[in-house]
Order: sequence, then structure tokens, then C-alpha cells
Amino acid sequence: MKGNFKYHNPTKLYFGEEAMSHLADELKNYGPVVMLSYGGGSIKKNGIYDAVVAALKSAGKTVVEDSGVMPNPTIEKVREGARLARENNVDLILAVGGGSTIDYAKGVSVSAWCDEDPWEKYWVRQECPECRIVPVGSVLTMVGTGSEMNAGSVITSRSTGFKRGRVFGSDVIPKFAILNPRFTFTVPQYQMVAGFFDIMSHLMEQYFAGTADCTTDYINEGLMRSLIHSTLIAAKNPHDYEARANIMWTATWALNTLLKCGKGGDWEVHQIGHAIGLVTDATHGMTLASVSLPYYRHVMHDGLHQFVRFAKNVWGVRPEGKSDEQVALEGLSCLEAWMKEIGVVMHSRELGVTEENIPAVADATLLLPVGYRTLTRDEVIEILKESL
Amino acid sequence: MKGNFKYHNPTKLYFGEEAMSHLADELKNYGPVVMLSYGGGSIKKNGIYDAVVAALKSAGKTVVEDSGVMPNPTIEKVREGARLARENNVDLILAVGGGSTIDYAKGVSVSAWCDEDPWEKYWVRQECPECRIVPVGSVLTMVGTGSEMNAGSVITSRSTGFKRGRVFGSDVIPKFAILNPRFTFTVPQYQMVAGFFDIMSHLMEQYFAGTADCTTDYINEGLMRSLIHSTLIAAKNPHDYEARANIMWTATWALNTLLKCGKGGDWEVHQIGHAIGLVTDATHGMTLASVSLPYYRHVMHDGLHQFVRFAKNVWGVRPEGKSDEQVALEGLSCLEAWMKEIGVVMHSRELGVTEENIPAVADATLLLPVGYRTLTRDEVIEILKESL
Repeated sequence: MKGNFKYHNPTKLYFGEEAMSHLADELKNYGPVVMLSYGGGSIKKNGIYDAVVAALKSAGKTVVEDSGVMPNPTIEKVREGARLARENNVDLILAVGGGSTIDYAKGVSVSAWCDEDPWEKYWVRQECPECRIVPVGSVLTMVGTGSEMNAGSVITSRSTGFKRGRVFGSDVIPKFAILNPRFTFTVPQYQMVAGFFDIMSHLMEQYFAGTADCTTDYINEGLMRSLIHSTLIAAKNPHDYEARANIMWTATWALNTLLKCGKGGDWEVHQIGHAIGLVTDATHGMTLASVSLPYYRHVMHDGLHQFVRFAKNVWGVRPEGKSDEQVALEGLSCLEAWMKEIGVVMHSRELGVTEENIPAVADATLLLPVGYRTLTRDEVIEILKESL
Repeated sequence: MKGNFKYHNPTKLYFGEEAMSHLADELKNYGPVVMLSYGGGSIKKNGIYDAVVAALKSAGKTVVEDSGVMPNPTIEKVREGARLARENNVDLILAVGGGSTIDYAKGVSVSAWCDEDPWEKYWVRQECPECRIVPVGSVLTMVGTGSEMNAGSVITSRSTGFKRGRVFGSDVIPKFAILNPRFTFTVPQYQMVAGFFDIMSHLMEQYFAGTADCTTDYINEGLMRSLIHSTLIAAKNPHDYEARANIMWTATWALNTLLKCGKGGDWEVHQIGHAIGLVTDATHGMTLASVSLPYYRHVMHDGLHQFVRFAKNVWGVRPEGKSDEQVALEGLSCLEAWMKEIGVVMHSRELGVTEENIPAVADATLLLPVGYRTLTRDEVIEILKESL
């Protein structure tokens, strides 16, 4: 463990098939007006909407409906939601959905009582909220982003052409999350698998940084092994409760700040992925999948010891009689085989990336000065070409 | 992940060599009177007492001194502390020390304003506190118990002849903990190593239960691997900051409720260890070390699959051409070799257990109906004889 850090994560997690039975009680900790934020109509078809509304009623809440949160939620929608929250003086935002809905709810939570423009203040200037923050709770229906137990919020501004992540403080972390693995069963296969890769990417992007011996990396390896094991089962049988439960739990711990304790992170794959998402509106997890192998093969020599460790401890590669480079490459081949097996998108062209729009993607990519190597724009272009 | 559970752990952790610089700020969240609880005089020799008092002064606090907390803290001392806390209407109990001091502080926190006898209410009848609970914070100077981020409190009643653990709710978890690995450098080798084994025992006693595939076990394996690696370094060079930091972090996560999520636990080794501690007043971690190998060899066949997994995933035992029993036994031999290498007590007779007092130890041992096998009193005696 290097350096100094603070860990504080007060989110209450209710996990399991009966998790929803705690919602009505939990709601009693908040005032009478609840804004119910969700995406399209899927939660109305699978019964989750009715169960949530029943809990809200039993807790005696007035509900402010806020539907239509899109994947890759926009700042325009956040501004709309903030107006709605302020006009109704809501006491809680209950986000029912996946990471997009929860990220959006956090955006609204810090914008409702903010008198400046939220995009400029929070996502461009990265300032802290000074206004009253509306509490957020969630009922998770899709797994991947970890947004249910962190203070991150990724928002897209179509007018300025940027998709930006922002990590707020622990005052913005959701107060509670209802995690019922069964609620994720109706997610379409493509979205489910995209979520699986998003989780793996969170794990890898925090793993591939630093040179110190750090307990955090050992925890991370455990989570990767569990994820690989369970996703191979779930990709074939999405209704395997045990596998889906393990994946749901792994997703939460993959990005709730535990895995950055005492070490740095990389996050360049997420930057390229956000840029692809901005240009093509492709599903987030698939954008990450499409560039990961070219990216890691590109930076591997800058952090070779960690790629060797990844191969041995995560994939069980035996190092005897092999060079470090061979071991590291064998680890990445194992990653590739797993990706194909669970069925992620292996080529960015399937997402709408073309020779022609690569420069636009590169222009929209933030080049982070962290991880084992800071990319140049030319390197981003090279990686994107390899990803096609 | 099996069943339904809640995870909520709001303790703020400040970690690193500069962690103490946050104490004065943190103290501002509490009223003016702070009870300073600690053990013997060691913190006065190594400068930690002075640093804590300086922070208390800079935050403008009135300090109520409460020294003399013993290892294996007693209910008599808790009653004394509770009187002191109530008389002075303290706003915070600041525990400076290891697990004994923090366990004691939690005992005081629920007893100060309790009108019933705390031993009977909390440790015998295991009831929940209904009175005002005094908040607890800690500055950790010894590593092992994980008490800094959990609601557990082990208290000894000399008059009734019992040592009992009690897990309270999240309202009793310490509000914050200052974790500076350097503060643990002056702990004597014997106590340091005892703490190392206490951590390993927490990990193993949560690992050896259940048959389901559970992400929790993968996290646990990561923590065990990190602990084994770092303790081998620290046992030889206690001033290796990186190793001590990893061990400190592992200790916190080994027993902050994360590792029981979605699975059962065993905890029989702790029960036998507590009984030995009651009869001999031996150091907690060493009592666990002295009985662990006989215990695990005794129950191994009841949870063979998990002992095989332990051997392979924690110790890297290769299973090719071996029976499951051979693999499991090889894992336990690796455990034994590590124990000898770090220098724990391998025989309970070194702690004062004798053929003569074994029945008394067995009488004081709670037989828990969890883990892979519920022991009988005769089996406890058999294990204790093997441990001599």
C-alpha cells in the first residue's frame, strides 16, 4: 500500500432475492416526495416498476415520474431532471435501472439546487457541489458500472461533443442499493455481456498501474477470477442465479473505490471507449471490449511485471521455460479467448468505427497521464486502427 | 452468493504515514468531551500519545483520561469505563491501541447509558442496545483483530468464567480509524506475530464454510495470499513499511463483514482460543495458532472440496496425480510451514495448557453449530490433547 488515502463508503447494500422487501423500510428515512427515475419501458414489462411503486405507496410517498433516461445519459436530460426535482422539491431520487440511470440520478442530485450550469461546473471545471445535494437510492436492474456504490457520473454533452466521467465525493454516493440478481435476468444478452466486459475493464484498468506490492492487487485478482468463472456460466445460461449473483457482487466491488486504495489506475481504455461511444453511440461495455486487446498489447512492455503477474495469477499461465514477454502475451491470449467465449464485440468496426471517423474518435479521447504509459494522439489512432 | 444479506460499513478509514493529520479535523464532528482510552504506557513512550493529545488540543477538546485497558479486557473494566463516560457525559470515546482497546471502547459505548447490567444484557442475552450509544473512533497501534472497522467486542468476565464475543449492529461500528502502519512498528515481535496469525485465522474461519461458488471466497483467497507474502517479509524485518502496510490493510478487510457476505463461517477455532485465553490469559493470536492445525486436520474431511481449493488457490499446490485428501493435507502442511517461518506458538503447552486444565478449557468452549462440523466436548478435548 503506497501513499496516503481515505476510504469511506457508506452505501447500504441489500442483496438477494428478497432485497426488495427492505425498500419500503429504507424509504422511511426520507421525506415524502420521491422522484422515480428510469429509462424506457422495460421495467414496466418485467414487474420491477410495479414492485417499486408498491413499496413507494406502502411508505406513503408522493411519486414524481421521471422516465426516458437514455443509455449514455445527456446533460440536456440532466438539466430537465434537475428542473423537475427542484420544482417538486424532491426528498429522494430513486433510480431504477443500470449505470446510466444511476449516473444520471447523481447528475440531477447535484444540479437540482445548483445555480450555475452543471455541465460547466461539474464535468468541465470538475468543481465540488456547494448546494444542497438530493439523496439518491437505487434499484439495480443491470450490472456493470458499479454506479450503485460509487460517486461516479458519466454524462454526455451532445452540443459540445464530449462524454466525460466525474467522480464526486462520498456525499454523492447513493445512500442505498437494492441488489436482486433475478432483476438482471431480463437484460438482453448483448447488454448483459457488455456489462460483463465493463466489469472486467474496471478491474483491469485499476490493476494495470503501479509497481509496488499492494494488497489491493491481490483482492483484484480474486475478483477477476470469480468474474471469469461466473461469466462463462452466465453467458451460456443467463438464468443461473449463482453465477449472476456472483457477477452482480463483483461489479459492485469492482468500482466502489476499494480497488484504488494504495495504488494508481490507468483508465485510458475507458477514455477511448467514451470517445467511441460519443461518435457512434455504441454500448459502453462493447466499446471497451473492442479496443482492450490492441491497447494492452500496445502498453504491455511498459508494465511487463504486472502483465506477467496477470497471466500467472488470473489465468494460471505457467511461466516455466518462457520469457516474461511470452508469459505476458499468453495472459492476453487467455483474455482474448475468454472474450470470444462470452461473446463480446471484438472489432470496433462492428460498432461503427471506420477509417474515416477514427480522427474524430481520437480528438474526443482524453489522454490521461497515468497508468504505465501516456498515449499520444498518434498512438490512439494506431490502437483504433488495430481495433477495426 | 447465497441467501439474503445486508452490507453496510460506514467507518471512515484514514490510511498512511500522514493519516494522523486528519484526526483534528475528524474530531470536529463531535462534541467537546473526549474520553481517551488506552492500555499501558507504551503509547507514552513511542510518541503516539503526544500526537493524539496534540490533535485533541488543537480541536479544543476536554480530555477524560481512561488508561489501563488490559489485553483480554474485562467486564469489570467496562463497567468502570461506562461510569466514567456517563459521569463526564463524553461525546466520543477515542480508543488508542489494538483490538483489546477498541473492543473495550465499544463495550463502554453501549454501557455508559444502559441501566441494566451490560454483561448480562449484551454478552449473555445478546440483546441490542436501546440506550444512547457513545460514538467510538480509533487510532490503531496494533494490527490483527479488525476491530477498527467492525461491530465486534470480545469481553471477559472473570467472575463468571467466560470470554465472549458479541457482534453489535452498524450503529456500534467505529466512526473513523486512523491507520498509520508506522504506529505498529514498536509492537514487540511476539505480539506482532500473534496479530498476523489472528488475521489468518479470521480469513480461514470465514473461508472454511459453505459449498457454493461465492465471490467472497475469491476475495478471501486474495487477502490470504497477500497476508502470507507480507508476513514472511515483516517477520524478518518488522520495519518494512510496505509489508506492514499491506498487513494492516488486510487485517481491516479480514473482519469488516465483507468476507461473510453470501456465505457462512466456522469460528470454532476462535471459541477454543477464547477458552484457552480465559484459562491461561495467553495472547489471543497465539491461542488460535496453537489449535488450528489439529482442528483443521480434524474437520478436513467434512469440507474436503474447500480444503483442496485452499491448497491449490492459496498455496499453489499442484493437484496432478494426487488424491483430494493428499492435496488438502499438502495445503495444511504449507500452512504449518508458514506458521513456523513467521514464528507463532505451535503447541498449546507453551501457553499454559496442560493435561490437567484441558477439561476446564473444554468446558469454557462454545460449540458452534456452523462450519463443516459441529464439535462435541470430547472432540474439543481430543483437539486440545493433540495441540499440547
